[in-house]
Amino acid sequence: MNYTYSYEQLYQFTHGIFITMGCSESDAAMATRVLLSADMRGIDSHGVARLSGYVRLWEAGRINATPNIKVVHETPSTAVIDGDAGLGLVVAPFAMTVAIEKAKVAGTGWVSVRNSNHFGIAGYHAMMALEHDMTGMAMTNASALVAPTFSTERMLGTNPIAVAIPAGAQPPFVADFATTTAANGKLEILQRKQAEAPLGWVQEADGTPSTDANALKKDGSLLPLGSDREHGSHKGYALGSIVDIFSAVFSGASYGPWAPPFPAYVPMPQNMPGVGLGHFFGAMRVDAFRPAEEFKEHMDNWIMRFRSATPAPGHDRVLIPGDPEREMEAIRTKEGIPLVASVANDLKALGEKVGVAFPH
Amino acid sequence: MNYTYSYEQLYQFTHGIFITMGCSESDAAMATRVLLSADMRGIDSHGVARLSGYVRLWEAGRINATPNIKVVHETPSTAVIDGDAGLGLVVAPFAMTVAIEKAKVAGTGWVSVRNSNHFGIAGYHAMMALEHDMTGMAMTNASALVAPTFSTERMLGTNPIAVAIPAGAQPPFVADFATTTAANGKLEILQRKQAEAPLGWVQEADGTPSTDANALKKDGSLLPLGSDREHGSHKGYALGSIVDIFSAVFSGASYGPWAPPFPAYVPMPQNMPGVGLGHFFGAMRVDAFRPAEEFKEHMDNWIMRFRSATPAPGHDRVLIPGDPEREMEAIRTKEGIPLVASVANDLKALGEKVGVAFPH
Repeated sequence: MNYTYSYEQLYQFTHGIFITMGCSESDAAMATRVLLSADMRGIDSHGVARLSGYVRLWEAGRINATPNIKVVHETPSTAVIDGDAGLGLVVAPFAMTVAIEKAKVAGTGWVSVRNSNHFGIAGYHAMMALEHDMTGMAMTNASALVAPTFSTERMLGTNPIAVAIPAGAQPPFVADFATTTAANGKLEILQRKQAEAPLGWVQEADGTPSTDANALKKDGSLLPLGSDREHGSHKGYALGSIVDIFSAVFSGASYGPWAPPFPAYVPMPQNMPGVGLGHFFGAMRVDAFRPAEEFKEHMDNWIMRFRSATPAPGHDRVLIPGDPEREMEAIRTKEGIPLVASVANDLKALGEKVGVAFPH
Repeated sequence: MNYTYSYEQLYQFTHGIFITMGCSESDAAMATRVLLSADMRGIDSHGVARLSGYVRLWEAGRINATPNIKVVHETPSTAVIDGDAGLGLVVAPFAMTVAIEKAKVAGTGWVSVRNSNHFGIAGYHAMMALEHDMTGMAMTNASALVAPTFSTERMLGTNPIAVAIPAGAQPPFVADFATTTAANGKLEILQRKQAEAPLGWVQEADGTPSTDANALKKDGSLLPLGSDREHGSHKGYALGSIVDIFSAVFSGASYGPWAPPFPAYVPMPQNMPGVGLGHFFGAMRVDAFRPAEEFKEHMDNWIMRFRSATPAPGHDRVLIPGDPEREMEAIRTKEGIPLVASVANDLKALGEKVGVAFPH
């Protein structure tokens, strides 16, 4: 059973929770916008379903509600930012804004971030570039759930990559994807349904290919995009590694199996080689390459041509990256955001605990 | 049956061929180095096996042996280069050098290229950054062989991405991969063996999943990394699209299904929206993010930690991107480069035609 809430209802509630954590008014507003953008775009695993998790990290002293986020190193087109253990939902937009400002002057801006934590959906941050006529990129490392090709050990997070490219009359191109075959949120949906996972999503602790949607709870691993060596898992492993290195080795965050876990009850890894989670952001001015109007005309042409590609039998159209999320956003703007009962109940309990009324 | 040649033998021959095309001494040397780096690294589909193909493109007037390669647009951290229909093997190193020079001043350099053609292996160009203590990136679009998710139409090339990251005592991290489940070269190997392809590499013309290694000759398509929607092919489709857009829409090259074909006998597409193939290059100074020695220590630590990940049963070690190619290069440096008979015979015939002796 689902309960449906308006954006405004969930906004007021979420904002109230961040205020009780001690966030400033503007930080609470930013964190709420980023978090709810996931619910609006249909990426339910990264929205208000995670709110309690952020609160628990704050309670555990792993999130600083009043961070002093600062640039600690820079060149004309780069910066490294220390997030001071702030909410990733706040640190990431700060960092993306620095990338955009760099790009205004240097053509492009590239920012690596340390001492942060979960930043919501990568797509939100990448899309910040669009209104400035820039291509935006965002990626982050995450706690280790993914085994490299030929390994049984969890070494990488789902390490997503988002790329947002402006168009003219057409909506923008927005890709936002985990570098695994399937994101953990999809497994959670199957767990609730007590359904099996397709072969190629997970492996058991000993490396056996598995259809057990609960494999991660039994020391199994998610598989890199490509599933197995024969189907290119070494490419997904390389992509996840690149995200890890750009986000954490570039900045001084904790990388690979040392990335700090999101669940507050999981102990921090020993001998961490850096500070907190890492992110990486890029902004490239469209007119750093060709006149903006000309660029947008060709992006429109690119999008229309790909939309007109011959559909396979059983499909009525070919999608452009970003189409499903934009269509979901239009639906939820009109009809509201449905939450599964477990999430609604969790939020209600959270609200009661800290004195913020959950809508009903 | 294989024939084995020394690097020097193939260098002399290949260099001689480029000279007969009218390339300058320095361009012939550069093109030869790039082409043979593929053979040395074991990426046989992109080495001397393609030499006749370049010659046929030149005969067809699609390659200009004496190009005036120039920067046509720039900002402190970006440039667009017109390759003047030169050999991609020459245009790409020129462009990567511009990216490196930009990075020396601005911290990073990003170069999009139009009016080029096949540039050999992406990894060569990305690795040019390493000796400058920079991370290098290289990508290119290519003629359309790949169907987007839910489509039967060939809309994208195999569009590879290469990323090279310097380390200290450890060898560098070098990822270089097509954004498809399998590259076309792997299908060609199966064709020679008259073997079937694994399910998930190709589909038939009507979109049916296929194990036919000859499916591309029957209007079938390669599949994006991920193989099918359930295993994340929309992610491979997004990656291939990003490469296409950065390489060709950024620069003014021909994109998507309009990318010019490599085989000279294939007619050029109608109504091309740009000029030639496109590439995209990046260079990021390591010390644009943190002190170089500190960065390298952590890259060494990253590499050693991943190498020590628990191997799956049946495997004795976990590889780092770039390991297989580097190991192949060590073997071929010692033992020479083996060519299959069809390639050796093709080169011999080419040499006889233009008066360059093929070694025996």
